[in-house]
Amino acid sequence: MELKDTIRSIPNFPEPGIIFRDITTLLKDGQALSAAITAMEETLRGVEFDYVVGPESRGFIFGVPLAVALKKGFIPARKPGKLPCATVSKSYDLEYGSNTIEVHADAIKPGDKIVLVDDLLATGGTARALCDLVEEMGGKVVKAIFLIELADLNGRQKLSGLDVSSVVVY
Amino acid sequence: MELKDTIRSIPNFPEPGIIFRDITTLLKDGQALSAAITAMEETLRGVEFDYVVGPESRGFIFGVPLAVALKKGFIPARKPGKLPCATVSKSYDLEYGSNTIEVHADAIKPGDKIVLVDDLLATGGTARALCDLVEEMGGKVVKAIFLIELADLNGRQKLSGLDVSSVVVY
Repeated sequence: MELKDTIRSIPNFPEPGIIFRDITTLLKDGQALSAAITAMEETLRGVEFDYVVGPESRGFIFGVPLAVALKKGFIPARKPGKLPCATVSKSYDLEYGSNTIEVHADAIKPGDKIVLVDDLLATGGTARALCDLVEEMGGKVVKAIFLIELADLNGRQKLSGLDVSSVVVY
Repeated sequence: MELKDTIRSIPNFPEPGIIFRDITTLLKDGQALSAAITAMEETLRGVEFDYVVGPESRGFIFGVPLAVALKKGFIPARKPGKLPCATVSKSYDLEYGSNTIEVHADAIKPGDKIVLVDDLLATGGTARALCDLVEEMGGKVVKAIFLIELADLNGRQKLSGLDVSSVVVY
């Protein structure tokens, strides 16, 4: 199965000139969805880690099944005001606008080994902010995994020093 | 394992007098997370269906791994403006405020058998709206599964006629 064939490309969304890679067609295809999780899992062969961290909301889509497949715990990074206990947060620039992510302050302890998961590596802003947040909490990001990488946007450069894998590259 | 013991209760969030059931402690516990998905899976024994539908964003947390476990596709119901193609939408009252959910118009075809998944059955507003939306598209909701049910809020009443299961009841 060619996973790329199950991803739909939508021109001029959310802005003119942007090609949006729509994963809903992949998600709806049970075989493709399973294959995507398996492909992500394979990038973790031999990698020791404690938790998967994924940002709201599309990081949940791939992060949780990956955590379940590997019998690890999942730590959600959420938009401000959603987590009920004390949080640490980080603001960052997005491709379109800006954003803030929060993690529970007691979720990551010094020495915890973290795998970051998200659907898309574009400019790398979200992943960079999340890495910085994890490291400020004393954790170590041992790997970052994306379903899709938009190579033109040089997200890997912003994540230099990090072990980065992606399943589908445009 | 008693799954309830892995859920943290936070008094007075998001409003005074509300006890918030915090699933982040369950998610972080790899064994509890796997057990939660397995418990949801068991409620589907003998149920024939085509797709799992889950609402943004906590419906993604349990809906996707459940779909993966059963080799089915997942259809996300999202907040307005997030889906790139033509959508159908439904507005509804929440426990706090109101909300609108959208599904791609081509995601559900007449006759499709749908399982709804969300983290929480409270007043049942989100699930009712999602059921109505699925049925307006010609689909049939054959089951609704929640990790947590707040029995006092009578969500089941709002979902009468539907086959509803929950894993942890308060």
